Amino acid sequence: MKYCATCGTPTSREIPDGDTRERYVCKSCNTIHYQNPLVVVGCVPEFDGKILLCKRAIEPRYGFWTVPAGFMELGESIAEGAMRETKEEACADVEIGHLFAAVDVPDAGQLHLFFTAKLLGNHAAGDESLETVLYAIDDIPWPEIAFKSGIFALEKYLEDAGRNNGVHTQTLRNNRIKTSN
Amino acid sequence: MKYCATCGTPTSREIPDGDTRERYVCKSCNTIHYQNPLVVVGCVPEFDGKILLCKRAIEPRYGFWTVPAGFMELGESIAEGAMRETKEEACADVEIGHLFAAVDVPDAGQLHLFFTAKLLGNHAAGDESLETVLYAIDDIPWPEIAFKSGIFALEKYLEDAGRNNGVHTQTLRNNRIKTSN
Repeated sequence: MKYCATCGTPTSREIPDGDTRERYVCKSCNTIHYQNPLVVVGCVPEFDGKILLCKRAIEPRYGFWTVPAGFMELGESIAEGAMRETKEEACADVEIGHLFAAVDVPDAGQLHLFFTAKLLGNHAAGDESLETVLYAIDDIPWPEIAFKSGIFALEKYLEDAGRNNGVHTQTLRNNRIKTSN
Repeated sequence: MKYCATCGTPTSREIPDGDTRERYVCKSCNTIHYQNPLVVVGCVPEFDGKILLCKRAIEPRYGFWTVPAGFMELGESIAEGAMRETKEEACADVEIGHLFAAVDVPDAGQLHLFFTAKLLGNHAAGDESLETVLYAIDDIPWPEIAFKSGIFALEKYLEDAGRNNGVHTQTLRNNRIKTSN
């Protein structure tokens, strides 16, 4: 962040009063520009004992396989984000189950969250995928899985076999509160 | 975001090619400025059957009670963030247990995550707290809890009574991988 997003003045890097970390600060309009981790949301869609994977059509890890996942957007819940990413990458509708895995990637400034899910119908490659395949458990292409967090999610999903209770989740939206388990 | 943080030129608001959402875009240096949800991390510190709460010394909700929680910082895991916030707000060390609650607050662009925790020693008001108190369960000041997400976390924590398995968590940091449950 070279320039202040509020007033366009060049920023400086310093520890604001009462803070303990260096931030980008604008000395012209006194705005402190905080930078925070990004959330990646995804799911493990299952149908008839098989797992839906997407072959990546984009970098990083072009040509490798992944569960549907991507950056959470403003205005959506983590479950909604996982559903949207599955629609975008695999043209597939899913019923989201429970949040069962959280992978910190602090060096990348990311947190990856994974839900269980049931695949509800057809699937096909979206713009960011070369192809989508329902893999039998024994056929999962482990050496070709794109990301360590995806490997973790798949391993834990298979270990759990439905036994993990997951976390309680809630969505607070205006006055509507939606709570699960 | 009125000005491009990369080059200082005024931004415009449009849907980039291949995207579906309006973003802040710089037509001078072609940077797309994504804006994403923020993660708040906290915990429910327990000691001898009592729960540690902090009375807020800052807005919003000055004077109301909360479990220790705050914005996750770059470079830390969600568990580390929950520990740091507890140290900052309650001058207390905790042993983090498992992630047991996730509260979406999409209208605020936030995701709140809560861990179980054991209070390990003393506690005292940090800079952002007026006081800290270990409350017996029956004495929790429910009408004076600061945020709905904190009420949810406390309610579910008490309902669980240690029975919730929580999610699997992992930290990927360079080549070091730390996995729990």
